Amino acid sequence: MKIGVLVFPAVEELDFVGPWEMFGMWGLIGSSVRTHLVGQSTEPLRCAKGLTVVPEFSFEDCPPLDVLLVPGGQGTRQQVDNPALITFVKHQVEQHTRCVMSVCTGAFILHRAGLLLGRRATTHWASLKRLRELGDVQVVEERWVVDGPVWTSAGVSAGTDMALAYIDHVSGPATASKVQMAVEYYPEARFYGGEDAHTKAPRYALPRK
Amino acid sequence: MKIGVLVFPAVEELDFVGPWEMFGMWGLIGSSVRTHLVGQSTEPLRCAKGLTVVPEFSFEDCPPLDVLLVPGGQGTRQQVDNPALITFVKHQVEQHTRCVMSVCTGAFILHRAGLLLGRRATTHWASLKRLRELGDVQVVEERWVVDGPVWTSAGVSAGTDMALAYIDHVSGPATASKVQMAVEYYPEARFYGGEDAHTKAPRYALPRK
Repeated sequence: MKIGVLVFPAVEELDFVGPWEMFGMWGLIGSSVRTHLVGQSTEPLRCAKGLTVVPEFSFEDCPPLDVLLVPGGQGTRQQVDNPALITFVKHQVEQHTRCVMSVCTGAFILHRAGLLLGRRATTHWASLKRLRELGDVQVVEERWVVDGPVWTSAGVSAGTDMALAYIDHVSGPATASKVQMAVEYYPEARFYGGEDAHTKAPRYALPRK
Repeated sequence: MKIGVLVFPAVEELDFVGPWEMFGMWGLIGSSVRTHLVGQSTEPLRCAKGLTVVPEFSFEDCPPLDVLLVPGGQGTRQQVDNPALITFVKHQVEQHTRCVMSVCTGAFILHRAGLLLGRRATTHWASLKRLRELGDVQVVEERWVVDGPVWTSAGVSAGTDMALAYIDHVSGPATASKVQMAVEYYPEARFYGGEDAHTKAPRYALPRK
């Protein structure tokens, strides 16, 4: 099972490295899962917070993928207008994948590739309105949303949580628990400054809102 | 304020990218914080789960750091015997930093650099025994531990949590809440397979153990 993780200039680091870690550990604990970083070329590229990464595959070299994960970040604003990237996503999803995922504003790339039409989907809290304004997506404020083969998540931590949920979905809770324990993913659910400081926090984080 | 994030072959991806994201956002919301990736050279290197990253500074080029973060991963087993890396850590901490941090098995690098002598510290749950056997560290099972200028954390998610706690420590809860909200870090505290499946989970995660 091949998972492709898409990267582009100004991609948000933790949007893709969170799921990357979970999928990587899934591969290490005895499954056939292999995770690959895919970019337009295999030249180094600079992420949103300055980290430089090197894709393993270019769009041309990339093998057929079973799962494609599309992260978000400032770079998505340019990439929705990059025909090479949109064509790559469309082609992989139409021809090969059983599941396509987005984290954060990666949802806008899925939308541009025609993959969110009439579907339930979500994105980073600060972009919910913008996604709603596209008019043809049913935007929901959940941590992550599954609509058939399309999984979309809210910002940063929601992407990592969605990756674990996908492992659970495919391989069951015993495997998901092994991955969670092996990487030691037991995050603290603390609100710095108290819940009142998180005026813009999404509804899934503050259910009493 | 310069934060250096150390990387080396087979470093654990999420150990350093979690804090990287938090520190990067801290820099973006109006502070003077700048975060830099530092390696023995500026050649691309392969992390534990296969991600290739490119350090911005080599040990030789690296400017004086205010904070140094040392992640963990399988690579630490080799790096404790790498005199160039140990000397770099020692030098930065003795000459420059106000705080040195480790995530996961990065604690073993701090130990080899003589920075944990008699201090309270922690590491990944599967390495607590090994850290205890070194004999001169007071090992505790907490999410993260502060002992003077030395901050150590448990595995993966604990490093990200420690980074937010450090932002709170330096800039206060209003800034920490802004960072948390901006990146959308509201992770789910779910135990896949139920708490009973997490037999080896550390005590901070399962306080009833």
